[in-house]
Amino acid sequence: MEERVKLSILLDLYGELLTEKQKDVMDLYYNDDLSLAEISEIANTSRQAVHDIIKRCHKLLVEYEEKLKLMDTKFKIQQVKKCLLDNIDDLSIQGESNLEKLEKIKKYIIDNI
Amino acid sequence: MEERVKLSILLDLYGELLTEKQKDVMDLYYNDDLSLAEISEIANTSRQAVHDIIKRCHKLLVEYEEKLKLMDTKFKIQQVKKCLLDNIDDLSIQGESNLEKLEKIKKYIIDNI
Repeated sequence: MEERVKLSILLDLYGELLTEKQKDVMDLYYNDDLSLAEISEIANTSRQAVHDIIKRCHKLLVEYEEKLKLMDTKFKIQQVKKCLLDNIDDLSIQGESNLEKLEKIKKYIIDNI
Repeated sequence: MEERVKLSILLDLYGELLTEKQKDVMDLYYNDDLSLAEISEIANTSRQAVHDIIKRCHKLLVEYEEKLKLMDTKFKIQQVKKCLLDNIDDLSIQGESNLEKLEKIKKYIIDNI
C-alpha cells in the first residue's frame, strides 16, 4: 500500500490519540496534501516544527498500529464481509419469503459489518 | 457492567499501549484479583507505587476507550453476530446443498466475526 494512503488510514483510526494540533497538521499533510510551507503558514508555526510534528506522529501512528492492529483488523473484516456476501449469493434459494429475508440479511451485513 | 470486569476487558484491548510493568500490575490486580500487598511483593516495589500504577493505568485505559471505543465496537460486533445467526436460523431453507452451504456460512460467521 502507498505510504501516504496507509498514513491517511492510520490517522483516521488513531487520530484521537494525537493532540488537536498534531492531528490538524497530519490531516493537512496526508489528507489535504499541503506542503510543509503551506502548513506552517496555516498552523502559524515554523516549517521545522511542522516537519518535526509529522515525523514524530508518523512514528506514533505506526507504533499504534503495531500494538493494536486496527488497520489490519479493518481489512480482515472487509474480507469477511465480502466473503459472506459472496457465499449468500451462491445459495440457490427459492420462495419469496426466503428471498426477502436473505436480502434483509445482506443489507444488514452491508450496513453493520 | 461491573467495574472490575470492564477494566479487565479494557486491559485486554489496550494493554499493549501500557509498559510491561504497568500491564503486569494491572493483570495481577484485575485478572488475578491479588491485593496491593501481594502485588507489591511480586513486583518488588512499594504498596504505594502499585497503588499509583493502578490508579494511573485505570485512568489511561478509560481515556483510550473514550477515544477509540474498541470495547463499544466489540459489543456491537457481538450483537451483529448474534443477529446474523438468528436471522439465518429463521430462514426456511430446503435442499441438502443449500443447508450445507448455510451451515458453512454460520460456521464462518462464528469463526470470523
